[in-house]
Amino acid sequence: MEDRFAISLLLDFYGELLTEKQKKIMDLYYNEDFSLAEIAEINETSRQAIHDTIKRCYKLLMTYETKLKLLEKSLRLSSDIKIICNKLENLQKGFDLTEENYIEIENIKNILLKDINI
Amino acid sequence: MEDRFAISLLLDFYGELLTEKQKKIMDLYYNEDFSLAEIAEINETSRQAIHDTIKRCYKLLMTYETKLKLLEKSLRLSSDIKIICNKLENLQKGFDLTEENYIEIENIKNILLKDINI
Repeated sequence: MEDRFAISLLLDFYGELLTEKQKKIMDLYYNEDFSLAEIAEINETSRQAIHDTIKRCYKLLMTYETKLKLLEKSLRLSSDIKIICNKLENLQKGFDLTEENYIEIENIKNILLKDINI
Repeated sequence: MEDRFAISLLLDFYGELLTEKQKKIMDLYYNEDFSLAEIAEINETSRQAIHDTIKRCYKLLMTYETKLKLLEKSLRLSSDIKIICNKLENLQKGFDLTEENYIEIENIKNILLKDINI
């Protein structure tokens, strides 16, 4: 079922909207790399039932992303923050910056890097 | 039903997770300031039915916010971006900044201000 890394990210954003059981199954499959058979054994159910749950949850995650676009927005924000941090680092490399301004730019970078994980 | 402005913000974040009809009713009530009776007339239903819909959707919005915290995160991000923009403006006000660096800081501010509405 497609790009596992992207689905793992979608799980970070929308996992809370799944039930505890659904979230656990998706986590085992996409983050812990368990096989369908292994997850079925843990849940004392069939491989087919787990397959259906994963397929249903996958569709749910995609629907949430279509509606809320949290992953898309987050990737854009991270990209912008990285661009800004590069610009700030280039400013810091210049010979024409005072020590005080250098430190202030460092403070700004620290606030921004915290925001990447918002 | 409490802080209308906060609910209006929650509608911006989670409105897409409501049905079209629910979203329209919430929009009329919280953004357009229609009365229950007016919304009931538009929807050819009772005042009580509209009241129940609004109450149910309000609970849904609060549940989404409890789980995803988009409003909380957005307010924190906006606050951080404002702090950073202030710091950048203070840097720009200094006499010790080159013209080139001034322009580069202006570019950074523009990227950040775009991100507030992400």
